[in-house]
Amino acid sequence: MRLYIGNKNLSSWSMRAWLVCTAFDLPFEEIVVPFSQAPDCSFQQTMQRIHPNGKVPALQDGDVLVWDSLAICEYLAERFPEKALYPKDAQQRVRARCISAEMHSSFMQLRQLCGMNIKADLREAGAGLWAEHEGLRKEMQRIEQIWAGRPQSDGFLCGNFSIADAFYAPVIMRIQSYGLPLSQDAQRYMQTMLTHSSVQAWVLGAQAEI
Amino acid sequence: MRLYIGNKNLSSWSMRAWLVCTAFDLPFEEIVVPFSQAPDCSFQQTMQRIHPNGKVPALQDGDVLVWDSLAICEYLAERFPEKALYPKDAQQRVRARCISAEMHSSFMQLRQLCGMNIKADLREAGAGLWAEHEGLRKEMQRIEQIWAGRPQSDGFLCGNFSIADAFYAPVIMRIQSYGLPLSQDAQRYMQTMLTHSSVQAWVLGAQAEI
Ligand SMILES: N[C@@H](CCC(=O)N[C@@H](CS)C(=O)NCC(=O)O)C(=O)O
Ligand SMILES: N[C@@H](CCC(=O)N[C@@H](CS)C(=O)NCC(=O)O)C(=O)O
Repeated sequence: MRLYIGNKNLSSWSMRAWLVCTAFDLPFEEIVVPFSQAPDCSFQQTMQRIHPNGKVPALQDGDVLVWDSLAICEYLAERFPEKALYPKDAQQRVRARCISAEMHSSFMQLRQLCGMNIKADLREAGAGLWAEHEGLRKEMQRIEQIWAGRPQSDGFLCGNFSIADAFYAPVIMRIQSYGLPLSQDAQRYMQTMLTHSSVQAWVLGAQAEI
Repeated sequence: MRLYIGNKNLSSWSMRAWLVCTAFDLPFEEIVVPFSQAPDCSFQQTMQRIHPNGKVPALQDGDVLVWDSLAICEYLAERFPEKALYPKDAQQRVRARCISAEMHSSFMQLRQLCGMNIKADLREAGAGLWAEHEGLRKEMQRIEQIWAGRPQSDGFLCGNFSIADAFYAPVIMRIQSYGLPLSQDAQRYMQTMLTHSSVQAWVLGAQAEI
C-alpha cells in the first residue's frame, strides 16, 4: 500500500491516516507530496494525477484508490479485521465511530482559527484567539467532554489506541502550538498521546522538514 | 431501533440517516424532535437527555446510542450486512465510503450559504449567491464530478441506492430550493433521486409539517 501525505508539519488530515498505518504496523510506503508554495502548483498537479479531488491523504492499494482520511480508516479497518483498528468491544466500537465522525464533520472554528503547525510557537496568537472566540471555547469544551468519556484516565479514548485517537491527534498538536488551556484530566490524555510512539514518530518527521 | 430526527423540512443531517433506514426497510421508529423557535430550548433539553452532544440524528438500539449521521450509517451497515447498505462490489464500496466521507467533511460554502429548506422557493437568493460566491460554484463543480462517476447514467451513485445517495440527498433539496444550475447529466441523477420512494416520503413529510 502507498499512502500519499502532505507536509508532516502542516497536514492534519494526513496525520490521522498515517498514525493508523504506523500504530497498527500496517504494510505501507509513505509518499510525501509537499504543498507547493510557488505558483507552480506542483502539489495539485501531482495529486490530481492520483485522484480527481487532488487532496491528501490518499491510499493506493493495488488498483484500489481511497481518498479522504475517514474513508481510508474505514477501508483499513475492514481490510485488516484482526488488527482491531476500531475496538472489538461493541460499545467502545460505536463510541469510536461516533467521535471520529464527529471530528470529521465538526469543530470548524478550531480548524479554521488554529491551523496545525507543529513546529511553530503560536501561544501569543492562541491567547488572543481564545479570548475573542466563544465558538472556539465551546468547541474545546465539547472536545474535553469527549476525552473525559474514555474508559481509563491513563488510557486512550476507547480503550487501546484506535482510529479515534488518530482523529484527535491533530487537535493535540494545535493545543500545544497555540497553548490552549486544558483541564487536568484532558492534560493527562494529551500526555498519553504525546508519549505514543506513532505520534512521536510523526512529530520527529515534522521537525526534520525544512 | 429509535431514530431521533429534527424537522424534515430543515434537518439535512437527519435526512441522511432516515433515508437509509427507510430505503433499506430497517425496523425503526422515527421520533421527531422539532427545533425550538422559542427561547424555551426544548429541543436542546430533549436531545441532551439522550446524548451529551444533543444533536440530531441519534439512533437508539437497545442500550447502544449512536450519534452523528455517518457513524449511524456505518453502524447500520455493520449491523445489517445482508442488506448491503454499502455496495457489495469492492470498488463501488470504496467509492461509496470516499464520497460519503467527503460529503461529511467538506462543502462548507454550500452548507452555510444554502441551508436546507425543502418547502421554500429561494431561487432569487440562489441566483445572487451563485453569482457572488466562487467557492460555491467550485463546490458544485466537484459535486458534479462525483455524480458523473456513477456507473450508469440512469442509476445511483455507486450502483444500487446506497448510503452514498443518502448523503447527497440534502444537496439535491438545496439545488432545487435555490435553483442552482446543473449540467444535463447531473439533472438526470437528480431525477433518479427525486423519484426514489424514500426521498419522496421524506419530502411529503416535510411538506406536511406546519
Ligand atoms: N476530507 C478530506 C480533507 C483533505 C484535505 O483537505 N487535505 C488538504 C491538506 S491537509 C489538502 O490536500 N489540501 C490541498 C488542496 O486543497 O489543494 C480528508 O479527510 O482527507
Ligand atoms: N455531524 C453531525 C451533525 C448533526 C447536526 O449538526 N445536527 C443539527 C441539525 S441538522 C442539530 O442537531 N443542531 C442543533 C444544535 O446544534 O443544537 C451529524 O452528522 O449527525
